[in-house]
Amino acid sequence: MALLVVGSLAFDSIKTPLGIADRILGGSATYFSLAASYFTDVRVVGVVGEDFTAEHEQVMKDRGVDTSGIQRSNGKTFYWSGEYGENLNEAKTNVTELNVLEDFQPTIPPAFLDSEFLFLANIDPVLQAEVRHAMGGARFVGGDTMNFWIGGKPRELADALKRIDVLLINDGEAKMLAQEHSLPRAARKILAKGPKALVIKHGEYGATIFFGQGAFGIGHHPFRAPALPIEEVKDPTGAGDSFAGGFMGYIAAQGEFNREVLKRAMFYGSVMGSFAVECFGTERLQKLSRNDIEARFQIFRELTHLD
Amino acid sequence: MALLVVGSLAFDSIKTPLGIADRILGGSATYFSLAASYFTDVRVVGVVGEDFTAEHEQVMKDRGVDTSGIQRSNGKTFYWSGEYGENLNEAKTNVTELNVLEDFQPTIPPAFLDSEFLFLANIDPVLQAEVRHAMGGARFVGGDTMNFWIGGKPRELADALKRIDVLLINDGEAKMLAQEHSLPRAARKILAKGPKALVIKHGEYGATIFFGQGAFGIGHHPFRAPALPIEEVKDPTGAGDSFAGGFMGYIAAQGEFNREVLKRAMFYGSVMGSFAVECFGTERLQKLSRNDIEARFQIFRELTHLD
Repeated sequence: MALLVVGSLAFDSIKTPLGIADRILGGSATYFSLAASYFTDVRVVGVVGEDFTAEHEQVMKDRGVDTSGIQRSNGKTFYWSGEYGENLNEAKTNVTELNVLEDFQPTIPPAFLDSEFLFLANIDPVLQAEVRHAMGGARFVGGDTMNFWIGGKPRELADALKRIDVLLINDGEAKMLAQEHSLPRAARKILAKGPKALVIKHGEYGATIFFGQGAFGIGHHPFRAPALPIEEVKDPTGAGDSFAGGFMGYIAAQGEFNREVLKRAMFYGSVMGSFAVECFGTERLQKLSRNDIEARFQIFRELTHLD
Repeated sequence: MALLVVGSLAFDSIKTPLGIADRILGGSATYFSLAASYFTDVRVVGVVGEDFTAEHEQVMKDRGVDTSGIQRSNGKTFYWSGEYGENLNEAKTNVTELNVLEDFQPTIPPAFLDSEFLFLANIDPVLQAEVRHAMGGARFVGGDTMNFWIGGKPRELADALKRIDVLLINDGEAKMLAQEHSLPRAARKILAKGPKALVIKHGEYGATIFFGQGAFGIGHHPFRAPALPIEEVKDPTGAGDSFAGGFMGYIAAQGEFNREVLKRAMFYGSVMGSFAVECFGTERLQKLSRNDIEARFQIFRELTHLD
């Protein structure tokens, strides 16, 4: 079933201990779309500037992503420059140029309005709430956010949180959002703010999904998916968005969201995140096969399963 | 089969966000013995001072631990005082009084020499190597160490590492020992120093076992066991030693160490660690049943297993 993502399209300059990349294709919606494209039909809404060429758009088209919701504005595409030290879990941001993203007003093409699955990637929570409202028919809504909005627009974020089914954030964001050091306690507090489920991503340690009381009628025991112990992480950029793409893409492909589906979605999220970090930018996500994905899924299973 | 542990017996004063305990029974050998006692016959070698009463010893005896290897010296028992802040993964040490541990010379009682399984808890690597030598007939040897020895006695530690089968340390210790930030790369470097297998404990994120090339003839894919998302960690002290006790105890009970046994041992290690942190000191480890342990094992399975 169709999955709509609204988020950023960007150019990134990235430095990691294993290399440098200059102004390569990036953005939350880009990573998300590519990762999700291996599972279901993906539609993307975002904004780009005049420097975003047909060639850039073709990267998504080649994966069957419907790019007709990409809006073009006068000016430059959102630009981010950052670097990672030996601790690959934390990026140091050098430059953030919002450019055309600053005045982004998402417009959902009429042909996208029947999307049953929706992902609100990391953008202004005001926009997230507006898109959610416009997509009233969506059956299952995922969302992301970051410290910038948690600190800067807490009321607007609280409003957006009431309108999403599953929030995907990392350890630091969860602790900040809940103002709580214990992750399980933070999870409980965040679930009380609205989401039926919460995925907390632990970087190299995997991710845990917590469920609200009675959410999806599936009990409240959490579930944890591992991350792969990878010796050579080339570039961690986009790992979280790729996780979200695999997670939401798998769920959309099943068309339902019971506990079994959500557990497998956690694994597919981790699988897509593990591919993303193997190359700079979106390179690895552009040329996978379902066989690659299933083979990696089996490695994740072998990594954690007793029998 | 019999499992011998050589390590510290201690009194601990502990402060955590959830309470305070003054001069309670502690020490690596104590936590290890209690945790392992639910799986196999445990024998303990360590040293105590005049302040260590029959009542303290009875805690281990009540769990069937053979305490005849506990040596008594003039003076006071090893004393540690520390506290944990909101980040329960790191203890701040306030006081360390080695006392009788300073001149500890482990003596293995003749009746213990037939122990087929041996655990060298966190003591001076010189003593670890001596005990390993004295226990030449042991079929499977586990060991622990800490930053104090990694920094202070690297040559002696390198010697000890050549004589153990599986080393159990935490993330920070692994990075320090390998001088390497990437855990998978650190694991490879440490395995090159001698151990056939390496368990790296990730605190609240679980633990991963890495295998050396051809170790136990079981391939080199790592295996990861989760930790339980516990809302109320009362006292993290002894969690790592309890993990080691569950891990080694389960292996000793099976009498063999193939990949399947080591995977389950990882789960039982995590199970015992999860119990240890629920109460101050060794309280929770004193009064478990095998049923409690199997029930928790099932919770760990449900936390991570797809089917």
